[in-house]
Amino acid sequence: MKSAAEIFNNIVNERRSIRIYDDKAPFDGEAVARSLDRALLAPNSSNLQLWEFYRVKTKAKKDELAKYCLGQNAAKTANELIVFVTRKDKWKEHAEFVLNESKKDFPATLGKRHKLVVDYYTKVIPTLYFSDPVDITGGLKKIVSAFGGAFQPVPRQVTATDMRIVVHKSVALAAQTFMLSMQAEGYDTCPMEGFDSARVKKFLNLPRGAEICMIVSVGKAKPEGVYGKRVRIPREEVIFEV
Amino acid sequence: MKSAAEIFNNIVNERRSIRIYDDKAPFDGEAVARSLDRALLAPNSSNLQLWEFYRVKTKAKKDELAKYCLGQNAAKTANELIVFVTRKDKWKEHAEFVLNESKKDFPATLGKRHKLVVDYYTKVIPTLYFSDPVDITGGLKKIVSAFGGAFQPVPRQVTATDMRIVVHKSVALAAQTFMLSMQAEGYDTCPMEGFDSARVKKFLNLPRGAEICMIVSVGKAKPEGVYGKRVRIPREEVIFEV
Repeated sequence: MKSAAEIFNNIVNERRSIRIYDDKAPFDGEAVARSLDRALLAPNSSNLQLWEFYRVKTKAKKDELAKYCLGQNAAKTANELIVFVTRKDKWKEHAEFVLNESKKDFPATLGKRHKLVVDYYTKVIPTLYFSDPVDITGGLKKIVSAFGGAFQPVPRQVTATDMRIVVHKSVALAAQTFMLSMQAEGYDTCPMEGFDSARVKKFLNLPRGAEICMIVSVGKAKPEGVYGKRVRIPREEVIFEV
Repeated sequence: MKSAAEIFNNIVNERRSIRIYDDKAPFDGEAVARSLDRALLAPNSSNLQLWEFYRVKTKAKKDELAKYCLGQNAAKTANELIVFVTRKDKWKEHAEFVLNESKKDFPATLGKRHKLVVDYYTKVIPTLYFSDPVDITGGLKKIVSAFGGAFQPVPRQVTATDMRIVVHKSVALAAQTFMLSMQAEGYDTCPMEGFDSARVKKFLNLPRGAEICMIVSVGKAKPEGVYGKRVRIPREEVIFEV
């Protein structure tokens, strides 16, 4: 019997980005549903879960979205296209939800620990996420951080752009969980970043504050769906010990 | 016997962010090495692999880095701290490496396909990644993209900030592969974004163009190392069908 580590190792090694899917192969949409449920369990910044996942399934909608993916082969023959969206704009609503749920574990009777959780979601999070249209707030936060940082370690990622990056990173953690899960389910994937984000946002009726992190196509690979052998920078050039 | 999907499901469900590790528990550093090797196999933008992973292992170095992680518990008791770094500044060098390797699979005799690969790494990539200190280039690219986009789908992510985000996303894909791998190996992790990036960069002797994506602590959880039960926004509010 194989260990979990061996099986995980196979999943990672067998995953390749697939450009051509076999649209005649049987496909189980439930594998996508299960994999998205697993994606929801990815770690993410302050547990705010500022993400949304859109499953594009019908032929007409997939064809339209494939055009916005600049006609990439990886989009054209997929069984489904899943759009991973960032929702930084929902920070307030999600912080409130997470705080209310967390209060069940950290009731007022816990005193200091209760206060830490409440302060985090009612003070730290608004300080990080609040921003004005031209991010004057971010500029001010950066100045405060630079001054404080002269004397002690301080967070430096405080501007609106920094927080955009934070949210994209969290959504990427979910996207990778999804891709590995699809591989474990016996299917293939391809993450795409070459798309017209303005058109994709309009297509999904997304508000200004939402952004497209990644579009992942799924299906069963055709043998010719893998382009070339895997190319990797040698590990000695990227892994270091301190 | 459990299927790969069931085992992957367990890995995802059992992973929790750990704040207190058992520093007396046996720990196999080889699990970190194997997991970093798997992280290197994560999909990433244009396969440029603009990442570096730093293993911080000695007591003195870990104590110093934990301070820069603002004294977080998740950093203080870890067996190792792994710093996931973005290296957008290495795009030229990596593009050259990947192109040279890819030419083996796409020799000149392939004609059109050879030309596509060569054009991608010698024209598309420089257009996306080249930037000047104040990103006038990015502004111009945005204007060109907006004009072209009036008539047809075009890429909109073209500024220096957009490309920073692209690289952070790719490094996050590697970080999640790493964390799930450590879980499969029987260990626990905690991803951290609360740190003083200026001090961490100095600590690792990183150049200006490098950025800290995430610091992941690893070890074996103490029972009290999980803070509260898992809180998730209901799936109906974040997963949609189009």
